[in-house]
Amino acid sequence: MIRLEDITFFESVTTCWTDKEKLEQYSHDETEDIKSIPAVVILPETAEEVSKILRYCNAHRIPVTPAGAMTGLSGGAIPITGGVLLSTVRMNRIIEVDVNNHQVITEPGVITQVLQEKVAEYGLFYPPDPASKGSCFIGGNVSENSGGPKAVKYGVTKDYVLNLEVVLPNGEIIWTGANVLKNATGYNLTQLIVGSEGTLAIVTKIVLRLIPHPTRDLLMLVPFRKMQDAAEAVAAIFKAGITPSGMEFMERDALIWTQEYLGSSDIMVADDHEAHLLIEVDGFDEQVLMGEMERIMDVLSAFDIDEPLLADSQAQKDKLWKLRRSVGEAVKSNSVYKEEDTVVPRYFLPELLYHVKTIGNKYGFKSVCYGHAGDGNLHVNIIKGNLTDRQWREELPVAIKELFTEVVKLGGTLSGEHGIGLVQKNYMPIAFPEITINLMRQIKQVFDPENILNPGKIF
Amino acid sequence: MIRLEDITFFESVTTCWTDKEKLEQYSHDETEDIKSIPAVVILPETAEEVSKILRYCNAHRIPVTPAGAMTGLSGGAIPITGGVLLSTVRMNRIIEVDVNNHQVITEPGVITQVLQEKVAEYGLFYPPDPASKGSCFIGGNVSENSGGPKAVKYGVTKDYVLNLEVVLPNGEIIWTGANVLKNATGYNLTQLIVGSEGTLAIVTKIVLRLIPHPTRDLLMLVPFRKMQDAAEAVAAIFKAGITPSGMEFMERDALIWTQEYLGSSDIMVADDHEAHLLIEVDGFDEQVLMGEMERIMDVLSAFDIDEPLLADSQAQKDKLWKLRRSVGEAVKSNSVYKEEDTVVPRYFLPELLYHVKTIGNKYGFKSVCYGHAGDGNLHVNIIKGNLTDRQWREELPVAIKELFTEVVKLGGTLSGEHGIGLVQKNYMPIAFPEITINLMRQIKQVFDPENILNPGKIF
Repeated sequence: MIRLEDITFFESVTTCWTDKEKLEQYSHDETEDIKSIPAVVILPETAEEVSKILRYCNAHRIPVTPAGAMTGLSGGAIPITGGVLLSTVRMNRIIEVDVNNHQVITEPGVITQVLQEKVAEYGLFYPPDPASKGSCFIGGNVSENSGGPKAVKYGVTKDYVLNLEVVLPNGEIIWTGANVLKNATGYNLTQLIVGSEGTLAIVTKIVLRLIPHPTRDLLMLVPFRKMQDAAEAVAAIFKAGITPSGMEFMERDALIWTQEYLGSSDIMVADDHEAHLLIEVDGFDEQVLMGEMERIMDVLSAFDIDEPLLADSQAQKDKLWKLRRSVGEAVKSNSVYKEEDTVVPRYFLPELLYHVKTIGNKYGFKSVCYGHAGDGNLHVNIIKGNLTDRQWREELPVAIKELFTEVVKLGGTLSGEHGIGLVQKNYMPIAFPEITINLMRQIKQVFDPENILNPGKIF
Repeated sequence: MIRLEDITFFESVTTCWTDKEKLEQYSHDETEDIKSIPAVVILPETAEEVSKILRYCNAHRIPVTPAGAMTGLSGGAIPITGGVLLSTVRMNRIIEVDVNNHQVITEPGVITQVLQEKVAEYGLFYPPDPASKGSCFIGGNVSENSGGPKAVKYGVTKDYVLNLEVVLPNGEIIWTGANVLKNATGYNLTQLIVGSEGTLAIVTKIVLRLIPHPTRDLLMLVPFRKMQDAAEAVAAIFKAGITPSGMEFMERDALIWTQEYLGSSDIMVADDHEAHLLIEVDGFDEQVLMGEMERIMDVLSAFDIDEPLLADSQAQKDKLWKLRRSVGEAVKSNSVYKEEDTVVPRYFLPELLYHVKTIGNKYGFKSVCYGHAGDGNLHVNIIKGNLTDRQWREELPVAIKELFTEVVKLGGTLSGEHGIGLVQKNYMPIAFPEITINLMRQIKQVFDPENILNPGKIF
């Protein structure tokens, strides 16, 4: 419970919002259909302000839910216990692009695409960009260990985070590591914070490594007559020794629904197109990339494909990527749905698809699948469609458990890039035995003994 | 204290050695001049055997020091509390090269080079290879988060570890993650174990990701007339947008001493050569690599260099790399020394070198520097030479503290790839405030409440 004097204290530190409209706005992220109203939204501008707020909340056992742009897909930023919603929206400065060291120091409230564009001005590249790159925050990306389409070649957020300034629940401000490419100095607290979904500390500064920005890319959309072929082709391309910079899978309905959603009809989806792969290669030499695309075509010729579309202009590339990036929103606009973020070793993608469809048939649900096939990361959107509320409430979780059980058998796990947050936490025992979850709980207790930080998430 | 009945129990589980010669052999690693005899050396073959031993030792509070090939440079594998030395030398099977998924599952006691050569048979590449790759174990690499010359392009050990089977001090066997390229499922226990120097758990299986093996490389040795120029050229090459696969720095004496040590005189070190850079580019296209080397030469033309040597045969490449890999041994054979594993953001390498030499002059010690310049990782070998034992014992630690203080000011830290282990732990407060070290200590306690696992290391 938050008292009036608490609000008075928060207001003495920094900007606070308590009006209904704002509280409503901060009551949900992009996760399906869940809301919880915070008592107050606090918008600190500095680590020192965050420190004062956390020290106070820790002393008074007031729950604090850290939030970025609230674009998350696992409910991590929903203030389910009420209390304080701490938004990083005003910590939005890019502090330094360190061109000499190929690093950038940024605050967490910077939009990922803004950060990308800023460092690109210096010929530098920050690769991880979730579909929501135009609205999500880099701080949220760090908290969820976000991926995106480039991860297949360049890795995910964790592969770029060198060092973090964080505020611990007791108000202490520390750096987790150093601004170096190699570090063998004590436990890797940096990587412990990355992906911890705001449950251990609040990130207030981020040091990212950067790489030279590729100057060329080629993009190709390939229609497959059999969905399983598309899934199998993925590992075949990598086995041929090529590492594409994008390798995206879209099931038939994903493409059709998204074109409808965007009011576009550029891509002819023939009756016998079950799925598409969107394949990108990038680098610094057009000749080399043409050679790679040719080798990819050689691999694909063993599968039952229709004519590929090789994008012949930047506008066409942008259009294809926009299509891919909008699938999530398109599905969302189409039906009540539940999204799973399954991930398996990439060669097992066909088996994963098989299980998705088989379990769907068994329980009577339809699914639309798409995602980062090169990483074995398949977003499974389960559509409510004609299912009754009872089926949706009672049977779906059973079906999902069955799916995750198969995923884990394949060496995979619950989430590739969306996090566990609120909506996946009941499935954690499928991925980890109690002993392991308990280790995580105890680590949580080391950082946050009063359990004030994002309580009720992950575990 | 270990009792006879303890030995009897260990012998009932697996192979044990108690003879003086073996205990002596396992009393030290490759760290300068430190020994401590264990009471018993235990050589389990399976995770189950490790589990039985740890459970027993945990119940009886017997200290266990895990050890691989004992090639470490920070004393991490020295059994300073006596007790059990648990060697992974018999856990030496490569369990599966998963060509379809570009992964390998291995036990910890496999020699890194053996693992590299095995996966190379399938056209796959495991890049991290410390100078000791012909003798060190992959398990030790995981425990120390080892780097090596390829790290500059390909990253360090942590960037390849997907999943670990570990035995906790209480005997529980768990997997830390999943065999996937992307993972946002709970805290990253995998990355917490990597680099934890055997203080949290004993690694019994390792899942590594692999990449396509480059098919071409070019190697060039460049003499610089000014050491500072060599250091400055490093960042300049990266700023030009090139990412070499090797970028090694060797001070004049490093090259001269190593040639003497190897009985070779292939490289003419002129009187005015203060330092050399060994620069490698690799990839799949000879033309592209030639272009990269030309661009590197363009960058270097701004510095005061002598004629570069471009290796014209595999034999010459091997010879140059052997030279570089042998510097450590050569220095060791030349004098009593103490090695520091400093690391800074790469652009600050010239400043780091300046501080090394300035502090050396102040305290009267000579140093030989070499290392992975592209990562800002400089191995500083401090030579005892004419220093008295008292100076060595009392003044050197003061000088090293001064050096590390400058390193940390530059955004760097104590160890890039050797770990903290025993010999660097007194310097930890320079890198981290007490609050942070205390977080690490508490994490240690979560995993190892009885403090049986590699006690006295890191903290």
